[in-house]
Amino acid sequence: MQIWPHKHIHSLANFSIEDYKSVFKLADRFSSLKNSGTKKISDLEGTLVTSLFFEASTRTMNSFELAAKRLSADVQTFSPSSSSLVKGETIIDTAITYASMGADILVIRHCSNHITFEIAKNLYKLNSKTSVLNAGDGSHSHPSQGLLDIYTLIKFFSPKVLNPYILNTKKILILGDVIHSRVARSNMCALSSFGADIILCGPPSLVPNEFKNFINSPTPSQLKDPIKSRGSVTISRSLEKSIKNVDAIIVLRLQKERMKENLLNSINSYSQDYCLTPEKLSLNNKDIPVLHPGPINRGIEISSEVVDEYHNCLINNQVANGIPIRMALLYLLRKFNHNNLK
Amino acid sequence: MQIWPHKHIHSLANFSIEDYKSVFKLADRFSSLKNSGTKKISDLEGTLVTSLFFEASTRTMNSFELAAKRLSADVQTFSPSSSSLVKGETIIDTAITYASMGADILVIRHCSNHITFEIAKNLYKLNSKTSVLNAGDGSHSHPSQGLLDIYTLIKFFSPKVLNPYILNTKKILILGDVIHSRVARSNMCALSSFGADIILCGPPSLVPNEFKNFINSPTPSQLKDPIKSRGSVTISRSLEKSIKNVDAIIVLRLQKERMKENLLNSINSYSQDYCLTPEKLSLNNKDIPVLHPGPINRGIEISSEVVDEYHNCLINNQVANGIPIRMALLYLLRKFNHNNLK
Amino acid sequence: MQIWPHKHIHSLANFSIEDYKSVFKLADRFSSLKNSGTKKISDLEGTLVTSLFFEASTRTMNSFELAAKRLSADVQTFSPSSSSLVKGETIIDTAITYASMGADILVIRHCSNHITFEIAKNLYKLNSKTSVLNAGDGSHSHPSQGLLDIYTLIKFFSPKVLNPYILNTKKILILGDVIHSRVARSNMCALSSFGADIILCGPPSLVPNEFKNFINSPTPSQLKDPIKSRGSVTISRSLEKSIKNVDAIIVLRLQKERMKENLLNSINSYSQDYCLTPEKLSLNNKDIPVLHPGPINRGIEISSEVVDEYHNCLINNQVANGIPIRMALLYLLRKFNHNNLK
Repeated sequence: MQIWPHKHIHSLANFSIEDYKSVFKLADRFSSLKNSGTKKISDLEGTLVTSLFFEASTRTMNSFELAAKRLSADVQTFSPSSSSLVKGETIIDTAITYASMGADILVIRHCSNHITFEIAKNLYKLNSKTSVLNAGDGSHSHPSQGLLDIYTLIKFFSPKVLNPYILNTKKILILGDVIHSRVARSNMCALSSFGADIILCGPPSLVPNEFKNFINSPTPSQLKDPIKSRGSVTISRSLEKSIKNVDAIIVLRLQKERMKENLLNSINSYSQDYCLTPEKLSLNNKDIPVLHPGPINRGIEISSEVVDEYHNCLINNQVANGIPIRMALLYLLRKFNHNNLK
Repeated sequence: MQIWPHKHIHSLANFSIEDYKSVFKLADRFSSLKNSGTKKISDLEGTLVTSLFFEASTRTMNSFELAAKRLSADVQTFSPSSSSLVKGETIIDTAITYASMGADILVIRHCSNHITFEIAKNLYKLNSKTSVLNAGDGSHSHPSQGLLDIYTLIKFFSPKVLNPYILNTKKILILGDVIHSRVARSNMCALSSFGADIILCGPPSLVPNEFKNFINSPTPSQLKDPIKSRGSVTISRSLEKSIKNVDAIIVLRLQKERMKENLLNSINSYSQDYCLTPEKLSLNNKDIPVLHPGPINRGIEISSEVVDEYHNCLINNQVANGIPIRMALLYLLRKFNHNNLK
Repeated sequence: MQIWPHKHIHSLANFSIEDYKSVFKLADRFSSLKNSGTKKISDLEGTLVTSLFFEASTRTMNSFELAAKRLSADVQTFSPSSSSLVKGETIIDTAITYASMGADILVIRHCSNHITFEIAKNLYKLNSKTSVLNAGDGSHSHPSQGLLDIYTLIKFFSPKVLNPYILNTKKILILGDVIHSRVARSNMCALSSFGADIILCGPPSLVPNEFKNFINSPTPSQLKDPIKSRGSVTISRSLEKSIKNVDAIIVLRLQKERMKENLLNSINSYSQDYCLTPEKLSLNNKDIPVLHPGPINRGIEISSEVVDEYHNCLINNQVANGIPIRMALLYLLRKFNHNNLK
């Protein structure tokens, strides 16, 4: 394994191919340890992982906490309902308080874009050793979800040997509410890094034309990458047309709670056009995998038949893969702790 | 110990005498280990117990979590307030998500009768190894509470040797809000399995006549049981009369939160007739034990004098016994995991 | 170390100098263990610490839980939102329930003054071995905060050797909302025990004249103490004047949530006079330390410049010291458990 260059994990925008491979290899190792009966590993004994979730969340917070426990770390949970927030404390002060208590890693979810950069900046001023791991900030980034989605795809396409380069030849459809989705943005970062072609499909209100330019050029850290040319991003308004030639579909959750009124004429008309049903799926004659970051809105962006009966619906694999992927991130942040980095 | 035949624990309706004895023997063993200073046992190290409580609860959730920790299991808590439920996820999907994360046992409380059967059915379709343990579903069943209540009675009647058959000769009064009570139903299952006679006492609105027929005949699994004839169920409208000849009283909580308006003329008139007071207790000239599943409504179904001063009030024993009983259930589900069972 | 004489910790009013020294010495030991890389200590393995927090809290609950985990204790958290309180249970019954489940130490926060005495009295009636640790009751007492504040001051004034007597020569300013503050009362107990002089500063609505008489004479337990004369308490209405000669400032949080309407003419006018700013701080020409128990109201009782930029602002030290101080308290309650005491 090469050296791990990140003190904090804010987004996948500055991940190099080597970074992805470090995470995926570790996840593979943790998975196989579990399958061989080793449920707990003592690597992070004594490490304190604190989750600060300022947005309602089920699976992500629990997934991180479980990952931490599997590594024998101690877990501390900040729950905003019983919190100092009601006493007027700022999120920066809350984060600093937990760092002062001894948190080695702060796992943070918040509705504000880029908030984890702000927190890391303040910790740096205090000479803090604490790492920050973004578990979802506004519509900006959700790196662990992006990593587990891509890992799930790679395991599907090359189940025996871990070969992330297999994505280079693939065409991936991302369907639905792209504009509100930090998951979509993190997926696009990862997929394009490996040269996959991305099709974004949805109505203009959810998939504005600007997304065509999401990836202009490799980021500086990718200039040394083996895959130099990044994949393309195209936009489609028709699921029926775009579904025909793709190799995988990532369905996004319709984030009703983030939508302003009348953004969609109606959810019903959205579902008519874009809900993934067995009928629409049958327009593609390969056995393509279907992913969804959950939680799902049955019958809105994806039909119950696809969720419950389609044999290549990988939703539960995604949830399962979340544990080893997050174990890998926690492990890397601790084993290559860069106290001198911002 | 005989083999444990259950992959899931939904209710006591299909418990055989052997099943009860397996649980009670293990609980005895865990209790005596604790009394001899062994606070933690490593039997379930690496096991993941996830509690999904969709109803407010204090003691049951904490009791299960503590039982799991005493066995060195990892504990994951789903709290509905910070959950995907606000994003519209169904409880089945929530349960499947946690199973996919690696939960070995899901401990579930929910307001819908029979919901745990539904969840188990869905897990079975997915080939999941996860066990389901009902911690209270609607007014249907609350098996761990039923077991700890009966265990508390047995320890009272035969403190030195564990002899569950002692219940065969006993007459047990269940007092109060039977209709809304899953505890009452689980108690009736257990008591009648051992041939105890049950008297249900309360007004017709809370103890309808239909409850006379609660136990028609032994369930199929009990045909091989040593106790073939089940106890009787009778209904009484007068606490003064029925209290005279019983060997124990189980007071139920008046579940005000589940009542429709005007179901009772008033709580006051209920308390007049059915609140267990020292005066009413003195009509019985034996030193009978008093149980209550908690939380208590002081002065409504039971008076503070009985709770705080009556020497055979076993409420705190029930709470204490909840830990070894739940340890036994978690242990049995893991040590005899029947992955091929529904 | 002398013997530890307390079964419960309700307040600092009955702490002797020896008691303070026992706590501080242990805290020093736990801190140095941590600094030398030992993150977990197995001393309280198998001990069950249950936190019952009936008021919203971030740092205190998490600090206690973390302290317990560092000592390898099991931690159980009672969260009032998902609790039996909605079912009408009293706090005394809740506490007894958790003691019955096996809690060795109940860490309790509640809005009622002296509630922990009430709980301890009820546990005593039941012959319970459970200890009670007050984590803040109304405006009465918050002993662990008082201890960590004083410990932080001592470490500042004598960083190399632990010398609590150094407080004897110091003049400490307590600034702001004294009347609502259990922290102020606990600080006054501790500071005066060591003979420090205390100046309370604020408007009459927040610092009534009666506080002059807070300390009349040593408590009975202090008659044998090496420091026989307690420090003085004076009251000042002017921060500009009183700040000049002090050796440290403890800023209190303006407890807006506890204030009745119009108690202050306005928060603005309060801040004008009493908000600690760099300007006011510059009236003192020593490098005095500034403490605040948190959470802070930026710009109300303390300015952001002081919090973020003043080099002797010890807020983060206080948070960090909270862990070893609370470890010491939990440790002492367990290692010198006085089951026969009230």
